[in-house]
Amino acid sequence: MDNETQSLEAIIENNLSGRDLDEFNRIYYGRKNHLEVKLKDSSLAAAKEADFEVAAYAFPAKKEQTRPPRIVKVGVIQHSIGAPTDRPVNEQKKAIFDKVKKIIDVAGQEGVNIICFQELWNMPFAFCTREKQPWCEFAESAEEGPTTRFLRELAMKYSMVIVSSILERDEKHADILWNTAVVISDSGNVIGKHRKNHIPRVGDFNESNYYMEGNTGHPVFATRYGKIAVNICFGRHHVLNWMMFGQNGAEIVFNPSATIAAEAGSEYMWNIEARNAAITNCYFTAAINRVGYEEFPNEFTSADGKPAHKDLGLFYGSSYFCGPDGVRCPGLSRTKDGLLIAVMDLNMNRQIKDRRCYYMTQRLDMYVNSLSRVLDLEYKPQVVHENDK
Amino acid sequence: MDNETQSLEAIIENNLSGRDLDEFNRIYYGRKNHLEVKLKDSSLAAAKEADFEVAAYAFPAKKEQTRPPRIVKVGVIQHSIGAPTDRPVNEQKKAIFDKVKKIIDVAGQEGVNIICFQELWNMPFAFCTREKQPWCEFAESAEEGPTTRFLRELAMKYSMVIVSSILERDEKHADILWNTAVVISDSGNVIGKHRKNHIPRVGDFNESNYYMEGNTGHPVFATRYGKIAVNICFGRHHVLNWMMFGQNGAEIVFNPSATIAAEAGSEYMWNIEARNAAITNCYFTAAINRVGYEEFPNEFTSADGKPAHKDLGLFYGSSYFCGPDGVRCPGLSRTKDGLLIAVMDLNMNRQIKDRRCYYMTQRLDMYVNSLSRVLDLEYKPQVVHENDK
Repeated sequence: MDNETQSLEAIIENNLSGRDLDEFNRIYYGRKNHLEVKLKDSSLAAAKEADFEVAAYAFPAKKEQTRPPRIVKVGVIQHSIGAPTDRPVNEQKKAIFDKVKKIIDVAGQEGVNIICFQELWNMPFAFCTREKQPWCEFAESAEEGPTTRFLRELAMKYSMVIVSSILERDEKHADILWNTAVVISDSGNVIGKHRKNHIPRVGDFNESNYYMEGNTGHPVFATRYGKIAVNICFGRHHVLNWMMFGQNGAEIVFNPSATIAAEAGSEYMWNIEARNAAITNCYFTAAINRVGYEEFPNEFTSADGKPAHKDLGLFYGSSYFCGPDGVRCPGLSRTKDGLLIAVMDLNMNRQIKDRRCYYMTQRLDMYVNSLSRVLDLEYKPQVVHENDK
Repeated sequence: MDNETQSLEAIIENNLSGRDLDEFNRIYYGRKNHLEVKLKDSSLAAAKEADFEVAAYAFPAKKEQTRPPRIVKVGVIQHSIGAPTDRPVNEQKKAIFDKVKKIIDVAGQEGVNIICFQELWNMPFAFCTREKQPWCEFAESAEEGPTTRFLRELAMKYSMVIVSSILERDEKHADILWNTAVVISDSGNVIGKHRKNHIPRVGDFNESNYYMEGNTGHPVFATRYGKIAVNICFGRHHVLNWMMFGQNGAEIVFNPSATIAAEAGSEYMWNIEARNAAITNCYFTAAINRVGYEEFPNEFTSADGKPAHKDLGLFYGSSYFCGPDGVRCPGLSRTKDGLLIAVMDLNMNRQIKDRRCYYMTQRLDMYVNSLSRVLDLEYKPQVVHENDK
């Protein structure tokens, strides 16, 4: 990945300065100063040793008279896979556990309260191959699988809520598969799980070959540190998915993703969608993407007229946080493993709701009415022609 | 406005080059090359003479076997007011007509098919004053007012569809006011009108002092050149407003706006919301903002603890187009009047729908069901607690 661009952030930092940099930051990020938070020397040393990036930014709120601040440290982790994809399933999984544990340890030492990984963090994103074996064997029980067991220990050790996106094997229902986010509490219990609501049928990402649309609605998990929800990957294109988490009271919505930079890829939309969701729903969002190239043993085609190949192209990382006001922090790199921490005051959500009144002005009754009519097979769109009168 | 930043675009152009510029453009705009379209020398000369900016960009689609391309030239105009706000109402209006006519003439000579202005383009944005006089006197009949009569002639002259956002006097209903977009066909007839669905109550923008939420639903206007709709200003924060225009078949949705750069302003969200709407709804969007400072005769306060003052701060222009794939063109400047033209192939909308399947994967039935339950006064949000089991 030596010839890959490190990040849009690096391009800007390397070329802009003074007033130009201030103005770029104001217009793009929403603030001139990134409010970087100092990290422990031991964290920086550990990150250097294990070759991952670490950064932290503050999202403060105004002081209130009747509520104390509600400061929460939230982390997201992006990473590449840990072993070649032709190695045995359990060896591949173990290699990822090993590299991610080093990152979680740093998060724990920094006092991170809630952490979320990228989509299907414990396996290669192999659905482009359309092969069932060995990839289906990565599936696990959400409640009792080895990944959940691995994370429970770390959750207890660091009093950390962990959001873990995995391929779920549903043994209670005919052994079917789901794309599932498991939420583990700071005391190590599985609070609950959410299954991906919107499954892509785009290019190499027709994941409905493996699992179908989720059946868990839009749960918000009341953790010790705040109310969180998970909009898994492709759901970020669906504004109603984001909206329902807001209606259910989510304060932070994570978007664990797996998305690529290749031609017709999503990279230029990455800064748009999770930020728009934060703005319109007045909550914090975290967009988390995988990192690196994942080469598979057998070649596959991508229905784009091009020759068969063995990888999808770059997963471009670039994970970031956005506040309920739409202000974001710099993202992690496009190419490197990393831990990004946001020190956020959750009081900001209600302050923004009070200020902007988006929920009060949303006219939900009108839309329930309009959208229910759209569902009618004989729906007649509201179209006005010049000669209607 | 000499010390104002010209634009984010100018900062980038002035500081980046080579691969850094290419990569910035790819990640930010969605394409390395802006596909600038050459303008006539006479247009450039007229723009220079009248001191406005003019630029044009292409949004091509792939060739299809069974449909010819559907190339449409679409323009947006951003401008400052034309006379001081203490001049007589009709004089102020006339001054704006005069300056805008020069811009429309250039659009006409460039063969623009559809054009849209900023919000309430024919008057100062005076609602921050909370005064009723003389501002209410700017209101007009949508069908027969002087602004519509002025535009009808230009529409016929240039065979141009014109979208005109005005303060409407509703003589059929007790003389009340609306914030209304009037759509005039290329033959000079009023095809119809749309009234702003979402009225802000934010800072200096509590416009419900003047008009209330619109009662015209989400009309799409079938013009000779394509199906268009208008999401007026504050509606850009409301994802369901954008969505209903898409459900009704809009191919281009205009967002005529009046929004400012001041502290806690919207500028860093400007690139986000109309783009997100284009992406999730698979249609073209155009975001259009006013330009300049508007000083009012009497001072007013902004409920922000600061002293009374006579203007809102800078309306930052920055109007732009976005394709249904989320790729955008450079915007107009933050400080100058301007005409921006997009040469778009409307075939792209269906191509993107076919590629991304966002409508097919949106699970509207689930959301109609969920949102109708949210309306219940006794709604119980879907919240999972650790001890629920």
